[in-house]
Amino acid sequence: MSYTINKRVDGEFDDVVAETIDALEDAGFGVLCDIDVQATFEKKLGEDFRQYRILGACNPGLAHQGLEEDLELGTLLPCNVVVYEGDDGAVVVSAVEPGNLLDVTGNPALESIGDDARERFEQALEQL
Amino acid sequence: MSYTINKRVDGEFDDVVAETIDALEDAGFGVLCDIDVQATFEKKLGEDFRQYRILGACNPGLAHQGLEEDLELGTLLPCNVVVYEGDDGAVVVSAVEPGNLLDVTGNPALESIGDDARERFEQALEQL
Repeated sequence: MSYTINKRVDGEFDDVVAETIDALEDAGFGVLCDIDVQATFEKKLGEDFRQYRILGACNPGLAHQGLEEDLELGTLLPCNVVVYEGDDGAVVVSAVEPGNLLDVTGNPALESIGDDARERFEQALEQL
Repeated sequence: MSYTINKRVDGEFDDVVAETIDALEDAGFGVLCDIDVQATFEKKLGEDFRQYRILGACNPGLAHQGLEEDLELGTLLPCNVVVYEGDDGAVVVSAVEPGNLLDVTGNPALESIGDDARERFEQALEQL
């Protein structure tokens, strides 16, 4: 089973990033961090890398429920959605599969939160 | 097996956050995002919550190696270290256990990267 849910999207990279942020907001996620991997590798390593952004997506209600259940859960939050240039020129949007991610905790009480987050990610990807 | 490595630290919350960021830098991690969970819950949900920060820690060399091996890996990066108020007034610093996190990928080629990251997190926690 894949640990991500992804979709190939036609369009310019920056436009797809903006559309992804909008789609996440429509699905109830705020984007709490936005990491430009290409710029980071250029600055820190002097390495060329494809365009690649990591968006940290948080649904506050689900995060609150999860942290009430397991205070350490913040080490797995927010759930990330990445946008990158695929090998064939298409842009790929890929979200972590929240159910798989929460399996790391070994806590079955978090399962319904993972299901809810996955449905929201699927909704966001469908919108693209 | 726990999915985090943690340590209880004496001190004021904000001081511990600053010391944690310094210790992560000494261990080769840049902090690429810093989420104030308490402020987010207050703003988005109107809920009181304990002081809780999520620091996204990235070692650029390890991240680069990992992404060359598995382009979807960005959905699990950066590795988080959280700092929160424990129930007894102590401050808890907790890092995700990178080996467990990377197990999600099912890719054994990432194991050595997880080992390296774990050693660095252990070094950072020791410094606190």
